[in-house]
Amino acid sequence: MDIFIEPIGKLINQFTKLPGVGKKTAQRYAYKIIGMTDAEAKEFAESVLYCKQKVKYCKTCGNFTENEICDVCKNRSHSAICVVKEPKDVIAMEKLREFKGVYHVLHGVISPMDGIGPNDIRIKELLARIDGEVKEVIMATNPDVEGEATAMYIAKLLKPLGVNVTRLAHGIPIGGELEYTDEVTLSRALSERKSL
Amino acid sequence: MDIFIEPIGKLINQFTKLPGVGKKTAQRYAYKIIGMTDAEAKEFAESVLYCKQKVKYCKTCGNFTENEICDVCKNRSHSAICVVKEPKDVIAMEKLREFKGVYHVLHGVISPMDGIGPNDIRIKELLARIDGEVKEVIMATNPDVEGEATAMYIAKLLKPLGVNVTRLAHGIPIGGELEYTDEVTLSRALSERKSL
Repeated sequence: MDIFIEPIGKLINQFTKLPGVGKKTAQRYAYKIIGMTDAEAKEFAESVLYCKQKVKYCKTCGNFTENEICDVCKNRSHSAICVVKEPKDVIAMEKLREFKGVYHVLHGVISPMDGIGPNDIRIKELLARIDGEVKEVIMATNPDVEGEATAMYIAKLLKPLGVNVTRLAHGIPIGGELEYTDEVTLSRALSERKSL
Repeated sequence: MDIFIEPIGKLINQFTKLPGVGKKTAQRYAYKIIGMTDAEAKEFAESVLYCKQKVKYCKTCGNFTENEICDVCKNRSHSAICVVKEPKDVIAMEKLREFKGVYHVLHGVISPMDGIGPNDIRIKELLARIDGEVKEVIMATNPDVEGEATAMYIAKLLKPLGVNVTRLAHGIPIGGELEYTDEVTLSRALSERKSL
């Protein structure tokens, strides 16, 4: 006899598919579901389906949207495009409420180790968006090897098109301490020092 | 404009209902769902409904089951009943593969602070199970104030019925160190010392 009866075992198995969820956590989640009212459990299951059904990728920028074109692309100036790796990076930028331009989600970064080349991410789509209206492209990929390489690669393609390409600044995080800043970051902060 | 579009916001909201899941974790889960294939998302949602639909409580012991009476109650000797607080405690005991008796799930413990009295948990149902076949009742509620009080209360009710009532042993955990054992546990280990 299995320790878990089949419907519970099945649900635990599904929950372990979520990122960072192990057997024990999945078990707690399953018990929570069993403890819900029928209506609550139904609402839970339906929002999974609803979300999966409704959410598409914006034809222009590749971010999540319910329509063909997302609200950001529809309503904002296309004079500045912020290039990010994933939709969740758009959320991070949007939380600032400072950037008034539009986005371009690459859905990945160039990573030869993982067999991901320039054609596997949305670079063609970005190039196709460059017209007279676009004045600046801000590279906001992650500051890791792949993110930097991807930013460099795209910058090289964009510059001949006469568009201004920038990159988010690197340096010591605000509130951080010199003592605890890693060497690569500190060295970057030194070489990119600014006159006061 | 909201940062999350409605279907995503809704799903994030549902995920935060799971124990220990905050906004950020719920967001990661939602992205995982969006990244699934339609079939995978459907399977996920359906296991939630399936689990909620199929899982009932055993009429006898109160543990999870798909039928009227659970497999443990159906197939095992009723000469020993292990009394636990919640269904997940049954799983903990079953993992041992040592206990060959049956269970009784109280679905709570007496806790006057939370307004839970003896009639709010499955004590009546336990008393109704005591017949000539039952030789021993093992109290396996948690070793906290409420668990101990509940065990004492039930023991008092059971003893006049001529059944042997026992309690899981308390003491230093195996592999633990004296130095790091809390005082209450150490004091319990001392007062319940055994001759070698």
